Amino acid sequence: MSEVGRRVWAIAEGYIPPASSSDTRELTSHETVCILNAGKAPAHIEIMIYFADRAPVGPYKIEVPPERTSHVRFNDLKDPAPVPVNTDFSSVISSDVPIVVQHTRLDSRQAALALLSTMAFPAG
Amino acid sequence: MSEVGRRVWAIAEGYIPPASSSDTRELTSHETVCILNAGKAPAHIEIMIYFADRAPVGPYKIEVPPERTSHVRFNDLKDPAPVPVNTDFSSVISSDVPIVVQHTRLDSRQAALALLSTMAFPAG
Amino acid sequence: MSEVGRRVWAIAEGYIPPASSSDTRELTSHETVCILNAGKAPAHIEIMIYFADRAPVGPYKIEVPPERTSHVRFNDLKDPAPVPVNTDFSSVISSDVPIVVQHTRLDSRQAALALLSTMAFPAG
Amino acid sequence: MSEVGRRVWAIAEGYIPPASSSDTRELTSHETVCILNAGKAPAHIEIMIYFADRAPVGPYKIEVPPERTSHVRFNDLKDPAPVPVNTDFSSVISSDVPIVVQHTRLDSRQAALALLSTMAFPAG
Repeated sequence: MSEVGRRVWAIAEGYIPPASSSDTRELTSHETVCILNAGKAPAHIEIMIYFADRAPVGPYKIEVPPERTSHVRFNDLKDPAPVPVNTDFSSVISSDVPIVVQHTRLDSRQAALALLSTMAFPAG
Repeated sequence: MSEVGRRVWAIAEGYIPPASSSDTRELTSHETVCILNAGKAPAHIEIMIYFADRAPVGPYKIEVPPERTSHVRFNDLKDPAPVPVNTDFSSVISSDVPIVVQHTRLDSRQAALALLSTMAFPAG
Repeated sequence: MSEVGRRVWAIAEGYIPPASSSDTRELTSHETVCILNAGKAPAHIEIMIYFADRAPVGPYKIEVPPERTSHVRFNDLKDPAPVPVNTDFSSVISSDVPIVVQHTRLDSRQAALALLSTMAFPAG
Repeated sequence: MSEVGRRVWAIAEGYIPPASSSDTRELTSHETVCILNAGKAPAHIEIMIYFADRAPVGPYKIEVPPERTSHVRFNDLKDPAPVPVNTDFSSVISSDVPIVVQHTRLDSRQAALALLSTMAFPAG
């Protein structure tokens, strides 16, 4: 299974809720990009983040080994800069090999969590 | 990154919940179209809104600067007319340069918010 | 805007929750297919419904006028037979002109509603 | 309706919540792959599951009869091995005939359930 996916993906939504009703990692509000590398070579991935009112930040560099998945929380990205909470953003994910990208948010600001998810847009 | 996206997008769902359990902007029920312009030129965007039982309304005009995102709430669209709440609609988003469009709703009518999101349909 | 969409769409998910925490129409649990006809001709649409363990049922016939949207609840389909609640199904939506189709569920079985939505799969 | 869908699909997200607020089957937290076979021949399907830090597991073999749907819970997959809960994964779904695949989660860890859904990515 060496050619599953695309090399460029985009996610127009992006938002890290600024609060959580739980302090466990599982139930902390988070914004996630799930990346599947089903191929036989490692995926070298760069994420650029776009904002409403300032220049883009990145690239954030991630490597996903062959035949592995990585569910990356935007909350955890630190280099070159943390992703601000309570701020609208978008992202473009580029890889040197085909990958599949899906966007998921868990929002636990209120007493019962909410979820959203969608495949990212395959842009290249 | 100058050719990420498409020039025409459609969202068949559309509904602004008529109430909210919170009066902060973040937690007010809202229907959003998230637009990423990852290119080097400004995006001049027109949104047409379609209803079940009356003629379409628009275009609503939006400009997204180069390398910026705009998360536009249908609740905030006023010209040529506010978008009615508690009313089914659909929308078509057209741009003069490639953009990426995603649809998100936050529904806080009840005590715990609900979310939905999906990439829009790339129609042209 | 006369060629927005596709003529055949599929939704693999399908489930009408068997209960609701509210008896208003807005907050009753529902499974919806949202259909946009952005073109200048009426759309004559047929929906076939597929089950796990019995023959498909349909076609359910729907007409969406030009430049109009219709958010159709599976709960409301009656001819040739009501769609059973608490039962897994899938659907295929066929039209004689291009349309855009999106799938949404509101589940209000519990005290706070949940939502899901996704573009349908453009199959033809 | 014999050619609806594609033969290879991918879902980058995957997560079985480790708890539920209900012990009924309907309201137990679950991660589901909904598969529509709208064609006239049976679909022989293989699912491979990818993890963050170990080799892929599979294939899980499923047959969906002609003109039927199957909503398969990852929770129920047992052969060659159960899918672990509270663990990030991805999946690739391959079929010998065209199918349509959609991903849905019901998360009932907290008092009010949450839902997400998206069409899978058509990869081949």
